[in-house]
Amino acid sequence: MSKSVEARWRSGLGFSVVSADGGTVELDGDEGTSGYRPTALLLASLAACTGMDVISVLHKKRQTVGRYEVVVSGHRRPDHPRTFDVMTVEHRVSGSDVDSAALVRAIELSATRYCPITAQLAQGDVTIKHRFLIEGASDPREGEVVVTGPHGRGLAPLPS
Amino acid sequence: MSKSVEARWRSGLGFSVVSADGGTVELDGDEGTSGYRPTALLLASLAACTGMDVISVLHKKRQTVGRYEVVVSGHRRPDHPRTFDVMTVEHRVSGSDVDSAALVRAIELSATRYCPITAQLAQGDVTIKHRFLIEGASDPREGEVVVTGPHGRGLAPLPS
Repeated sequence: MSKSVEARWRSGLGFSVVSADGGTVELDGDEGTSGYRPTALLLASLAACTGMDVISVLHKKRQTVGRYEVVVSGHRRPDHPRTFDVMTVEHRVSGSDVDSAALVRAIELSATRYCPITAQLAQGDVTIKHRFLIEGASDPREGEVVVTGPHGRGLAPLPS
Repeated sequence: MSKSVEARWRSGLGFSVVSADGGTVELDGDEGTSGYRPTALLLASLAACTGMDVISVLHKKRQTVGRYEVVVSGHRRPDHPRTFDVMTVEHRVSGSDVDSAALVRAIELSATRYCPITAQLAQGDVTIKHRFLIEGASDPREGEVVVTGPHGRGLAPLPS
């Protein structure tokens, strides 16, 4: 299977990147301008990839989800080309009836089996950590779930 | 240095991902819908990253560029989670006076030194190939430039 995108230079360091699926994203690398930086876009691909897996599994497990956000933060090495050494993925789910075991299992499946972005990155030298927070329950439930990589796809469930 | 993005679930497999720099991108994983797929967004980050490097170097070398597009195609392995094994980056530049040696050097610098996305991916099991095409000259000039990875950052200049 083949995918392709086309980045069209606008001016300065600005590019519009269109995909064959009809998506467009505006990027800029200049200080003070708005728009995605390429490194942030890499984090965005991870956020959406794991997010799609998790919401899909939660729905299969008949969980009623209100809001769901995936916040991905990345830490970069100080030396050029300043690759990421750690990425932290926080899953924030609202829904008083969401079962934390179902959410943990959904995150594990994404991190260790389903998500192609995680699998691609975990071939290299980066650690990917997952956390979750269920809001809207009488007692917010949270915990760490799984750590992936570097150089492979480990699984270390640590529900708190 | 830390970067972060937030993916907000819309409905189905749809997410809007916003960056701290003010960018937004719409993703969808459902068949038949428009919007980026996560794997295409990974290619977009590579396209923009190398594109910014190349246009920046070309300007430092005082090259007058008309249009510039970066087309990135990716081939995925057949087995889940279907990681990319090959990515092909084609640099299309228009400008009758663009020096092909300057363009080749700009691409080499991005692929082997500057681009953090290339460096991150090249830690893993993917081959990244670059090609270029200069349009608008009396004789279009084209060639292969550099092959990166897997498992390291090689350099194989192959101007035709």
